[in-house]
Amino acid sequence: MNFQLVLDQINAELRPLLGQQGQVARYIPALARVSPQQFGIALRTCAGEVAQAGDSAVPFSIQSVSKVFSLTLAIKALGEALWTRIGREPSGSPFNSLVQLETERGIPRNPFINAGAIAVADRLVTLGDGKAELLALLSRLCGEPVAIDAEVAQSEADTGFRNTALANFMKGFGTLDNDIATVLDVYFNQCAIAMTCEQLACAAGYLCRDGRHPLAGTPVLSPAQARRVNALMLTCGTYDAAGEFAFRIGLPCKSGVGGGIIAVVPDHLTLCVWSPALDATGNSLLGRQALELFVAKTGLSVF
Amino acid sequence: MNFQLVLDQINAELRPLLGQQGQVARYIPALARVSPQQFGIALRTCAGEVAQAGDSAVPFSIQSVSKVFSLTLAIKALGEALWTRIGREPSGSPFNSLVQLETERGIPRNPFINAGAIAVADRLVTLGDGKAELLALLSRLCGEPVAIDAEVAQSEADTGFRNTALANFMKGFGTLDNDIATVLDVYFNQCAIAMTCEQLACAAGYLCRDGRHPLAGTPVLSPAQARRVNALMLTCGTYDAAGEFAFRIGLPCKSGVGGGIIAVVPDHLTLCVWSPALDATGNSLLGRQALELFVAKTGLSVF
Amino acid sequence: MNFQLVLDQINAELRPLLGQQGQVARYIPALARVSPQQFGIALRTCAGEVAQAGDSAVPFSIQSVSKVFSLTLAIKALGEALWTRIGREPSGSPFNSLVQLETERGIPRNPFINAGAIAVADRLVTLGDGKAELLALLSRLCGEPVAIDAEVAQSEADTGFRNTALANFMKGFGTLDNDIATVLDVYFNQCAIAMTCEQLACAAGYLCRDGRHPLAGTPVLSPAQARRVNALMLTCGTYDAAGEFAFRIGLPCKSGVGGGIIAVVPDHLTLCVWSPALDATGNSLLGRQALELFVAKTGLSVF
Amino acid sequence: MNFQLVLDQINAELRPLLGQQGQVARYIPALARVSPQQFGIALRTCAGEVAQAGDSAVPFSIQSVSKVFSLTLAIKALGEALWTRIGREPSGSPFNSLVQLETERGIPRNPFINAGAIAVADRLVTLGDGKAELLALLSRLCGEPVAIDAEVAQSEADTGFRNTALANFMKGFGTLDNDIATVLDVYFNQCAIAMTCEQLACAAGYLCRDGRHPLAGTPVLSPAQARRVNALMLTCGTYDAAGEFAFRIGLPCKSGVGGGIIAVVPDHLTLCVWSPALDATGNSLLGRQALELFVAKTGLSVF
Repeated sequence: MNFQLVLDQINAELRPLLGQQGQVARYIPALARVSPQQFGIALRTCAGEVAQAGDSAVPFSIQSVSKVFSLTLAIKALGEALWTRIGREPSGSPFNSLVQLETERGIPRNPFINAGAIAVADRLVTLGDGKAELLALLSRLCGEPVAIDAEVAQSEADTGFRNTALANFMKGFGTLDNDIATVLDVYFNQCAIAMTCEQLACAAGYLCRDGRHPLAGTPVLSPAQARRVNALMLTCGTYDAAGEFAFRIGLPCKSGVGGGIIAVVPDHLTLCVWSPALDATGNSLLGRQALELFVAKTGLSVF
Repeated sequence: MNFQLVLDQINAELRPLLGQQGQVARYIPALARVSPQQFGIALRTCAGEVAQAGDSAVPFSIQSVSKVFSLTLAIKALGEALWTRIGREPSGSPFNSLVQLETERGIPRNPFINAGAIAVADRLVTLGDGKAELLALLSRLCGEPVAIDAEVAQSEADTGFRNTALANFMKGFGTLDNDIATVLDVYFNQCAIAMTCEQLACAAGYLCRDGRHPLAGTPVLSPAQARRVNALMLTCGTYDAAGEFAFRIGLPCKSGVGGGIIAVVPDHLTLCVWSPALDATGNSLLGRQALELFVAKTGLSVF
Repeated sequence: MNFQLVLDQINAELRPLLGQQGQVARYIPALARVSPQQFGIALRTCAGEVAQAGDSAVPFSIQSVSKVFSLTLAIKALGEALWTRIGREPSGSPFNSLVQLETERGIPRNPFINAGAIAVADRLVTLGDGKAELLALLSRLCGEPVAIDAEVAQSEADTGFRNTALANFMKGFGTLDNDIATVLDVYFNQCAIAMTCEQLACAAGYLCRDGRHPLAGTPVLSPAQARRVNALMLTCGTYDAAGEFAFRIGLPCKSGVGGGIIAVVPDHLTLCVWSPALDATGNSLLGRQALELFVAKTGLSVF
Repeated sequence: MNFQLVLDQINAELRPLLGQQGQVARYIPALARVSPQQFGIALRTCAGEVAQAGDSAVPFSIQSVSKVFSLTLAIKALGEALWTRIGREPSGSPFNSLVQLETERGIPRNPFINAGAIAVADRLVTLGDGKAELLALLSRLCGEPVAIDAEVAQSEADTGFRNTALANFMKGFGTLDNDIATVLDVYFNQCAIAMTCEQLACAAGYLCRDGRHPLAGTPVLSPAQARRVNALMLTCGTYDAAGEFAFRIGLPCKSGVGGGIIAVVPDHLTLCVWSPALDATGNSLLGRQALELFVAKTGLSVF
């Protein structure tokens, strides 16, 4: 299949729609300033073929897309033991809700809602220097140095009242072992990592290759672990629209409020699309449409 | 792959565990009387190859497995219009909960929770004789006459206070168009259909064949519609354990409190497993283990 | 104190506001047709002095005000045993919510939310002919025959999906002993009783007289029981505005969506005000203002 | 009435029950160490008559009883403007729940749940030195210097994850204007104030005297404001048992997890009872029984 042609077509179809609908995330100034007039898409196949279109080389704030990689570090280090403090079910509630956390005694529903990602960050703090290890993992996975946008990280910290509430709430239930400020520092910084579509399409490559490093071929996760990360992405990866993504797109995806979405076609390829304007569910509006077009044009879907 | 050997191995491994854990559904006498000492498994490939082991020819009450087929009838007749009254998101709540229905103004989260299936039944009543059409569809799909267990249907009606509450609640919000008693008659009867593993493995065949009839090859659903039913099964098909099933098994599944579970390996095969003792989430305990073994032995998974 | 003068002043102050704000209950045609241009007020002291103003002799649908009297019948017959199936706490939720009922296993929070009043009706069915006994009690208490508006009762039954849902839901939890249709017949009929402000001000008189019949002086409830009904009215009697009523008015009150409100000044008097237009909490808009004026002018309050 | 005799009788009846039921609050060491073998009771009438029995002169941690006095300061300074950020309805949920706060966009239900008291503390920080003013108010009201137990205050801060979560959550919604640490410092310190039954019975005296200072007779609150504080105490003052207190006791009360409860008989007297062992709702077990006995023996109740 001529993937470059497919991505060019998608870019040509969607670019005219830029700026017509959706809204850039406004909760921190550094994100609110990003121009909505941007759209990028990139993929990398298991065989190493690459394709890209639009603003695929522009770095953006990966935000919650980082949760896939912090989870990967935690699974790699802890295996099944990770799941004593974090669930694996869709939440049926907004990504930053405290309600379920209260009725379920401080155990977050899954690692992709904010509470769950903060609990994962706590595990990384116990294991070592979570922030440095996450950057190192991402740099190795895409073969290029990856950095944190310090302004975004600071803004996250300055306005992160809801996340601080979640962390304190879990600490009260005993879900977190470490100092809240240290755990949140990891979390706010991971959200502030900046990467391009091309980098993320490469970095996520182990998820379509049974856990093997996209460049080196060495194991990042076991095949079963990689499949399970994909399963979590499909059931919980796109906030309260996971059912809709499964229904319309049918691929494991993880989105972030920076407008990025990564998607996995197991045994075929990984894909990253980015466009900053979000829909009401917090997912990139054109990103979602791009994935629908991709599936329609290629017939690739897990179902 | 020698599927008969795989199913024989699974039967041999699990049969010794019969009766050790779990509980048969007790809410109606006809289900409570079923012996937990039963385990059956059957599959049918896209190519028409069949395999079966254990009590695969014993009829059981399909219960919520029927929701896949009533949904199929409704999608076939209404297409996208069906989704104005029913959502497509995991609920994050028990299958018979009223809570979400209240906050979401009578629109059920998805067609596989009870409220959603009752809303589907309402659509079938509007379209014609839902009960007869469902039996006709199932009989055509498995090539044999299929019947309702009248005693089970009567018990469902006699004790269905929660479902009657759900139906009245939705009627109050305008989600149902038809008389409640008529709608519930369809719903209680569809739950009381009796089928064998072999019949269900065949009947579900259109879901692994892009919507084509497993025996006749004619379209039951369009390819996109079939994929979407699979997506709904994966995200919402196994009550409040959908995340767990995706994580451990990684296949679209639909379970029922009669102890049956159907599973789909797209482009490969459909599978039905049955064992009456349920786990705490209402899914067949050995059925779930059988599916985990099947995936481990065959490597088949959508992820 | 010259109560007639006080009521005349209140009538004079509020009558010009008729029809300016609020909305008549619209869920059944018979209530929707009532003219909002009506305001009546009446009181009766422990000593038997009466006063009235405005449309105090016009019969209206007492709706949830009836819950005080059905509760009185149930307490009289069952004493403390009543409280095994009904709670005594404010609900913090709308009067017809099912949410709490689900988390609290079918036990309604208090006898004044719909679920609680239906549970009381179930007790009355067990005890005898609830409908006839309630009419007999009300007729005795106000010294005049009281009747059910059959059209309202029929409309309640025809549109009572939410209440039917509540009844079925509780039946599923074992909170109701009797046939749902019979219980709801009592409930729908009690809501459809028609009375005037003058009749209700007299009928409620036992609540300010330590339980003694307002005309005959014989015990209707024990002094402790009467005090407790007052306590329930204050904490739970005005839907989700009970705190607001306590804060602004400071008297035990029970309102209905027909626009009536009864209020008790212990050891002094009972009062009934009626005006059909409701505020957003389902309480009579001018009725509430009338009670605030009454308290401001007389200084009567329990606090 | 011979109040000294009544209190002596209550002390004699309840003292033998000390240590038999209930549990001292355990969430901080300083409270967990308090001996449950203590019971004190004291009252002061509008006329200045005093009575006391048992451990009425032993200082204890007033905890949430302090919320009445911080609310008084805020009402005094802000009047009706206070209520734009705090509601006045019973919550129907535990005192430290976050659920309602989420659905109600950061506006706490009432000033006596923790979130509401933290919002009151925020108002006091805006107005000046909340901690000092609260101590000054209490010292003036009881005519003796009142102090904070520094160890308790430190423990509250060290373990206050839930309260920190509540504060951050509200800050995210804009309910708090001030720095979270400063607001919580006021809140944790007010909870750690130590007073005796005799001091509290005197200090609360303005609530039974239409807002006039119990010793000086000068206005602390207006008569309407004092009545409204009483109304809030009755509907919201005893955690999730407010309905039960109203039903059984029928007086405005405010309890704390230190085991203290203040109660108001408007126009008659204020009362304070203390016994550290709590019931399942977090209210003093013997304190509650003492209030029931007091009402039974004196016939004093607002209903």
